[in-house]
Order: sequence, then C-alpha cells, then structure tokens
Amino acid sequence: MFIPEHFRIANREEIEKFMFNHPFATLITARKGEIEVSHLPICRFNDGKYYGHMARLNTQADIAETDPAYVIFSGPHAYITPAWYASEVNLPTWNFSAVHCRGKVAFIDSPENAWSLLKEMVAILEGQTGWRLTEGHGHRRLIPHIRFFEFLPERIDAQFKFSQNKRSDDIAAIIDGLKGSGQKNTAEFMAHVNRSVS
Amino acid sequence: MFIPEHFRIANREEIEKFMFNHPFATLITARKGEIEVSHLPICRFNDGKYYGHMARLNTQADIAETDPAYVIFSGPHAYITPAWYASEVNLPTWNFSAVHCRGKVAFIDSPENAWSLLKEMVAILEGQTGWRLTEGHGHRRLIPHIRFFEFLPERIDAQFKFSQNKRSDDIAAIIDGLKGSGQKNTAEFMAHVNRSVS
Repeated sequence: MFIPEHFRIANREEIEKFMFNHPFATLITARKGEIEVSHLPICRFNDGKYYGHMARLNTQADIAETDPAYVIFSGPHAYITPAWYASEVNLPTWNFSAVHCRGKVAFIDSPENAWSLLKEMVAILEGQTGWRLTEGHGHRRLIPHIRFFEFLPERIDAQFKFSQNKRSDDIAAIIDGLKGSGQKNTAEFMAHVNRSVS
Repeated sequence: MFIPEHFRIANREEIEKFMFNHPFATLITARKGEIEVSHLPICRFNDGKYYGHMARLNTQADIAETDPAYVIFSGPHAYITPAWYASEVNLPTWNFSAVHCRGKVAFIDSPENAWSLLKEMVAILEGQTGWRLTEGHGHRRLIPHIRFFEFLPERIDAQFKFSQNKRSDDIAAIIDGLKGSGQKNTAEFMAHVNRSVS
C-alpha cells in the first residue's frame, strides 16, 4: 500500500484498537501467482493474538502455512468533494482507513481447541452482555465444517488518510460536510484522527 | 472467493449497479508472488468501461499490463447475532456483499486523455449537480502525478450473502435487528437482496 507520510499511522495501540474494532477482514493469498481472496472476521483476542476461521469448502482453507498471507482490516471511508472545503482550489479525493498485515496462518485442527476459540470469538463479537455459544444446543455442529487459524502478522502498515495535510479550517469543513451528508461515523473517525492520532 | 450457491449473484445488471454504486475498490496484484494492494475509486463510465487512477509514486502504477489484476468492489456488511432470529438454534455469521473481478489493466498515458477521463470520473462521483473540474483553476496540475488506467474485467464473481437460505420470518427479524442497531443502509440492502435479486 502506498502511504504518503502524512497518513501513515505508527502508534501501535491505535492500530491494534482499529483492528479490534474492524474485525471483518480480507484475506489474500497468491498460490503460484493465483490470487485468492476471502472476506471473514479475524478477531484480536484477549491474549493479543489474531484468530479467524474459514469454511472447509473454501479453497483458502488448505493454503500452506508457509504461504504469505496478506490481511486487510478496513474502516471508514468517504468521497470528499472540493465543494466542502473552506479554501479555494482543492481537488476531489477519497479519504479512507486501512491496516495491511503481511504474515502467515497457522491452522488449529484440534476440534476442542477450535470449539474453545469459537466460543471466545463469539464472546468478543457479541460484547459483554451478548449471546453465547453453549453446550447441548447443537452449536458444536459447526466445528467439522470450519477450519480455525491463527493469523501471525509479520509486518503491519497502517494508513488513516483523513486530510491531515490540509488547513485546520478545511479539516473542520470536511468533517461538517461528512456529517451533513449522513456520514456521522466517518466524520467522528476523521475528527479523532486529526485530534489525536499519529 | 468461496461462494455458496444461495449467495451467488448472476444478474449482470444487478452486479454492474453494485459496482457503480460502490466505486471505492481494492486493487490487488501479485508480482513475482509479492502481493500489493491499493484502495482507490474505479468507476463505471457511461460507456460501460471501468477507469481508475493511481499516484505515480504507488508501486502498482508500473505493473505490467499482462499481470493479473484482481479488483474487489465492497458493499454493506454486518455481524448477525443469533439473538435477532425468530427461530431457535442459529449460529453467528457475518453478512456481506462483494464483487470480485479478475482482469487486467491498460494504462492511459496521454495527458489529454487522462484529463478528459478525470473530468468524467469527477462528474460521476459528484452526480449531476455537483462540483466540476474546470480549465484555468490549476486542476490540471494533478495529471503529471497520477496514472490513469482502464480496468478490463475478464471474470466477475458476485456474492451478496444476506441470509437468503433462512426462513422468511428470520430474514425479517434480522432486517429489524440491523435497523434497531443503527445499520439502516445494510438493512435496506438486505431487504433488496431478499426481495428481488438472484
């Protein structure tokens, strides 16, 4: 990913928070040059490790653990019209947030371990008071149909491109533009990035 | 992309509408097995062709026109909790929409053609009454810094995974759950998919 220096995020805590908050990831592999892609949740667990699972019918469920695995975590994004700026002579752009990880996967093939990881993953996605996987309700029937893996990032590149290179009155005007066009979450993320992240 | 048959979309018009409505794409290449990824708008033009551009500083701006280029168009997605269903014994899932295209890029290196394409691209993104690129305002200064390309899809796979394999009362309950959790756009897309798309 091409990252102009204004937009590169180096703060590890901020990056991990982003990955935790945007678990619906894109897994890319390139076996013998053949690109394969899946969309699936990859969750940051309490121990700081990343786990996901795939349908066993997914061809990526039998990639080699030595194959490079590239994972994207994606967040808010929006088209930014020059009409929103305070200053003159701006060009259209697209603001976005993405964390790209190069790494490997390590499969977890013990059904007991997979069940334990699945329970924890659901607890993360559901939050403290949410629904839970339980014994005796047929929930375990999923286990033979999926393959769990740990994703081991080796290199992480983060870009939050939210007009950090613009004048402060333009940044405020763009945030107003996003709010006014119904993109409240993106506006809040952009305000956060420009307030406190680097 | 693994696509269970319930979720595969074959309707070409529906797929093209989705690509038009979700232009912020992911471009993936794998030169010598090295995966590279960019996030950038790729727009469907009036002539039915797809165009995008990259910063010349982006390493993907000099891929070979013979290299496979894989482009993802992404739409609404949401975690679906079993707590929302009408029926018993459901498992968590993530609903999502994605169109994956395998193809090639063809670069457009004439500055006049790039300027013309950029003007049309901005008109598409801005809509009929929006901001326009014009002569004499310094807008052309962008041209030497970007490289335009046509994206030529050779194979398109579309997945709208929105619980089409579930009971109709469960589908209605999930749509209500999405609305109730502030995910109105996703709820509307899911309703559309279950009403009219195949």
